[in-house]
Amino acid sequence: MRTRFHEDLEQLANQLHTMCLRDRAAIAAATGGLLNADLEQSERAIEICQELDTLRDQCEHTAVALLALQSPVAGELRKVVTAIQLVANLHRMGALTEHIADIARRRHPEHAVPESMRSIVARMGAAAVAMATSAAAVLASGDPEDAARFDAEDDTMDRLHHELLTAVLACDGHSSKAMVVDMTLLGRYYERFADHTVEVGRRTIFMATGCNPEEWAATRPRDR
Amino acid sequence: MRTRFHEDLEQLANQLHTMCLRDRAAIAAATGGLLNADLEQSERAIEICQELDTLRDQCEHTAVALLALQSPVAGELRKVVTAIQLVANLHRMGALTEHIADIARRRHPEHAVPESMRSIVARMGAAAVAMATSAAAVLASGDPEDAARFDAEDDTMDRLHHELLTAVLACDGHSSKAMVVDMTLLGRYYERFADHTVEVGRRTIFMATGCNPEEWAATRPRDR
Repeated sequence: MRTRFHEDLEQLANQLHTMCLRDRAAIAAATGGLLNADLEQSERAIEICQELDTLRDQCEHTAVALLALQSPVAGELRKVVTAIQLVANLHRMGALTEHIADIARRRHPEHAVPESMRSIVARMGAAAVAMATSAAAVLASGDPEDAARFDAEDDTMDRLHHELLTAVLACDGHSSKAMVVDMTLLGRYYERFADHTVEVGRRTIFMATGCNPEEWAATRPRDR
Repeated sequence: MRTRFHEDLEQLANQLHTMCLRDRAAIAAATGGLLNADLEQSERAIEICQELDTLRDQCEHTAVALLALQSPVAGELRKVVTAIQLVANLHRMGALTEHIADIARRRHPEHAVPESMRSIVARMGAAAVAMATSAAAVLASGDPEDAARFDAEDDTMDRLHHELLTAVLACDGHSSKAMVVDMTLLGRYYERFADHTVEVGRRTIFMATGCNPEEWAATRPRDR
């Protein structure tokens, strides 16, 4: 029974890791589609997001089967419960990415992002890909030290989001209201995508240590 | 053991119901604060949302204790797993409400919502309160028939959201970009709040029947 249990737990961890890698591929494609008004990339992003529905169902199925058949306790129960919560974060990252791809698709063949803001959005896209990469690495390693580094990456996204809103408010009076709406939503979607990667980090710390990140940080040597 | 189990399960159901009622109180206060530029109501909303952090922790604790100590299976396991997922929806409703209250607080003593749009926002707020009321009733009854009625309410919110964006795009050229940003975000927050209440309905159907809402609808007599 124990061997089967650990195989199932490993399968669940692999499924979560796969979801995160698909999120990364989706946000990269959605950002490419958005910045280049490239319909094919936007549609590719949407396809990946739809795959994530199936991956979510598979993960939830594995987790519930583990609970039903193996009745884990203590740290192993914590892993399965956290996995159920992580599935929701990883699935939501896909839904947010789909919204980004939808905006690009709706404006095609026009550009949704005015030229003056493309560099900021490109950096937000790169930050989102970097955070998904980190989240996937943390899911693979389960290392709370890696997870604790997320906050700095989220600060980058927050700064970029602020920069984007400042640019939106400062752009000339003839810019359309539709552009302001689109840019406000795009900023929000990238920021929320990043928030979910931070949650992946926080939950990984809890999964590994049984502490929330603040409690866990307090137990670590100061000079690290 | 069975008696203890059912007591714990009832406690969990009560905690979820309490969270939903707090969400309702919060969105009502946040909408009041927003429409009347009433700082006290906005701050009341924020306080309630902070209470929701504690309620979330309590619910999660009850659910994990149930899994650890009682090892439920079949329909009872489904209830506990669904409860863990519901906690996330109910907590997120509070976070969205806090964002609404924050916008009102940031613009105080000015009005965040221009007079021409206050009636639409008032209807969005009323729809959100109605949906939270329905979600709480469904959590209390666990009745999938009640849960199935949610979709119609969500259509109302979608229509209002569309009406709001149309009003934002149509308003005169001198209106500020900051107003467009605020209204775009407010629309998004109300819409997402409603989406989460719909999720509460969907999950309740799953909890009660083991089917997703579409599968379950297909099993019901056509003339209902």
